[in-house]
Amino acid sequence: MAVPAEGRAAPSDCELCSSAGGRLLWSGGNWRIVRVQDTDFPAFYRVISLRHVREFSELPAPERQHSMELVCAVERVLIEQLRPTKVNLAALGNMAPHLHWHVIARFDWDSHFPQSIWGPRQRDVNPAAELRLGIELEALDGLVTAAASGA
Amino acid sequence: MAVPAEGRAAPSDCELCSSAGGRLLWSGGNWRIVRVQDTDFPAFYRVISLRHVREFSELPAPERQHSMELVCAVERVLIEQLRPTKVNLAALGNMAPHLHWHVIARFDWDSHFPQSIWGPRQRDVNPAAELRLGIELEALDGLVTAAASGA
Repeated sequence: MAVPAEGRAAPSDCELCSSAGGRLLWSGGNWRIVRVQDTDFPAFYRVISLRHVREFSELPAPERQHSMELVCAVERVLIEQLRPTKVNLAALGNMAPHLHWHVIARFDWDSHFPQSIWGPRQRDVNPAAELRLGIELEALDGLVTAAASGA
Repeated sequence: MAVPAEGRAAPSDCELCSSAGGRLLWSGGNWRIVRVQDTDFPAFYRVISLRHVREFSELPAPERQHSMELVCAVERVLIEQLRPTKVNLAALGNMAPHLHWHVIARFDWDSHFPQSIWGPRQRDVNPAAELRLGIELEALDGLVTAAASGA
């Protein structure tokens, strides 16, 4: 099977071709990093392919490796700054079939834990999740941006 | 922060330390590959760390890279053999915090599509999902095993 290593033409209805997919923090190589603005999961970042490809294996190995170095760098910032119960990594793309990695800090008190963020809500959280992080999101964004530049 | 690169002692209650986590297909380096026996998602494989580590970033870079080469190899087999609507990749670990990658072929007719496999069921599937794959699971397992050996 031919692997479309150079990606396909961006479909006009792809939301990750036509919008950043979150607050744009960094861009380099084939990747950008954004923070998703989600009240339930405030420490939720995405590493998004700049080219429209559907699947991880469609990319050449150096680009795959770079994406995982970026995912890893974001994860380390989340672990060191937030001490989350768990970090969740995922590239699903069922709704937006444009390659992107979710990197999400999860806490045993969050709205869905231990379910996935796509599963059933387990509880309401009060005070709001963002207030429990112990760091301002803009400061966290700054550390993520710095880590991406070094990855 | 110290990163426990060599892993932690296996806790006695970790299900991925005490059991294979599926039908064992292959093992090499720090990884094993199993097929999860799931009626809704018959083409569901896992790449599981042999050592008990919680998070992807706790591993040294060569082991991280090997895991993603294995994930990619499994994904290519699923794409080439099954032509799925999408492949889902995820390392969550909220329930079993022992590093493992899910590699799941998804179809627009499956029980949960376009929701994640952890989301709400969308439909019943009849005939059963396994019968729709167009290949016997044992043959698919054989191709996955061969691909892992070459990754």
